Amino acid sequence: MLITFEGIDGSGKSTQISLLKNELQEQGYSVYVFREPGGTDLSEMIRGILLNPEIDIDPVTEVLLFSSARSQLIAEKVKPLLDNNDVVILDRFYDSTTAYQGYGRQSLAIDQIHQINKAATHGVKPDVTFYLRLSPQVAAERTKHFEKDRMELSGETFFERVYNGFEQLAKNEERFKTINAEKSIEEIHQDILNFVKEFLS
Amino acid sequence: MLITFEGIDGSGKSTQISLLKNELQEQGYSVYVFREPGGTDLSEMIRGILLNPEIDIDPVTEVLLFSSARSQLIAEKVKPLLDNNDVVILDRFYDSTTAYQGYGRQSLAIDQIHQINKAATHGVKPDVTFYLRLSPQVAAERTKHFEKDRMELSGETFFERVYNGFEQLAKNEERFKTINAEKSIEEIHQDILNFVKEFLS
Repeated sequence: MLITFEGIDGSGKSTQISLLKNELQEQGYSVYVFREPGGTDLSEMIRGILLNPEIDIDPVTEVLLFSSARSQLIAEKVKPLLDNNDVVILDRFYDSTTAYQGYGRQSLAIDQIHQINKAATHGVKPDVTFYLRLSPQVAAERTKHFEKDRMELSGETFFERVYNGFEQLAKNEERFKTINAEKSIEEIHQDILNFVKEFLS
Repeated sequence: MLITFEGIDGSGKSTQISLLKNELQEQGYSVYVFREPGGTDLSEMIRGILLNPEIDIDPVTEVLLFSSARSQLIAEKVKPLLDNNDVVILDRFYDSTTAYQGYGRQSLAIDQIHQINKAATHGVKPDVTFYLRLSPQVAAERTKHFEKDRMELSGETFFERVYNGFEQLAKNEERFKTINAEKSIEEIHQDILNFVKEFLS
């Protein structure tokens, strides 16, 4: 089973992933978590380039670098684990490229982004995508004291376009489960758990 | 004017590029040469990853990394120079991705490679592509004492598929000028120069 988490920074993805992982492990599942971009030596090298605020990266190059890191993660780690019937949880996947690079940066047409996503994922699709919905305003408030990386320094209207991108995906993709990320951590965890249990049984 | 050189290693691209550059500069043109992958700080970082024989790179990741380096080179250097009416010569361009990653590695369908090439080039196409045709056997003989990078260590049948890829492109693309790379350096140079002069006048 492949579970992905999507949403803008501050929506609580890491917290929920960690809670879900612990719960599934207690139930005896073998669970692997990877964050994008990253998860392999090569993908972490690419992450270092992508998040470095000192490097000027053209918007199309950005799509292709995120996709390079993703392709390596899928080929080297995710595919073999899924073939072995393990549970894989991804902290962001190709929907983030659609939302951030497609809707946010408007670097390429959405259709071109979809084609590149298709190549980079080696045909792997999530069974379910938990979309932690949080308005850009609340997210900005939650993250205002964090140190920001290159992506996070992209400005307010950028994050509004990203939010709209996620909303569009939530409308079009049946695998998206939209969750109100303003609810309490425990409530959100239970919502997610109920869905995953149903799916796994 | 954008001039690209293609062909397998050992076909004499660098020698011909250097001769052409000197000649055009003597005639008063402002000429810039870039090698792929490379040509910008970011693209050279990616080059370091791509050619390092110690790093295991999935074939799809390879396409995306070459394309990332290309996109940055085009956006940062080539497009502004062409807008300024300078002459740009590229030592390999997206045809190499089609031949090496598409036909050679068979990493993705040729159509998918074309789509990624289209994104990575920001719509920039060569005015002319000099294809230095050399059989893989002669090329192997010419380069047998060279130290090999990761791409060059890919084996004989790989280079035969790459050669066939270039032949396919030469058949389909009108901008391809096929040159017999077994001729003398001076003969090849004159062939290229005659064509370029005609084009520039």
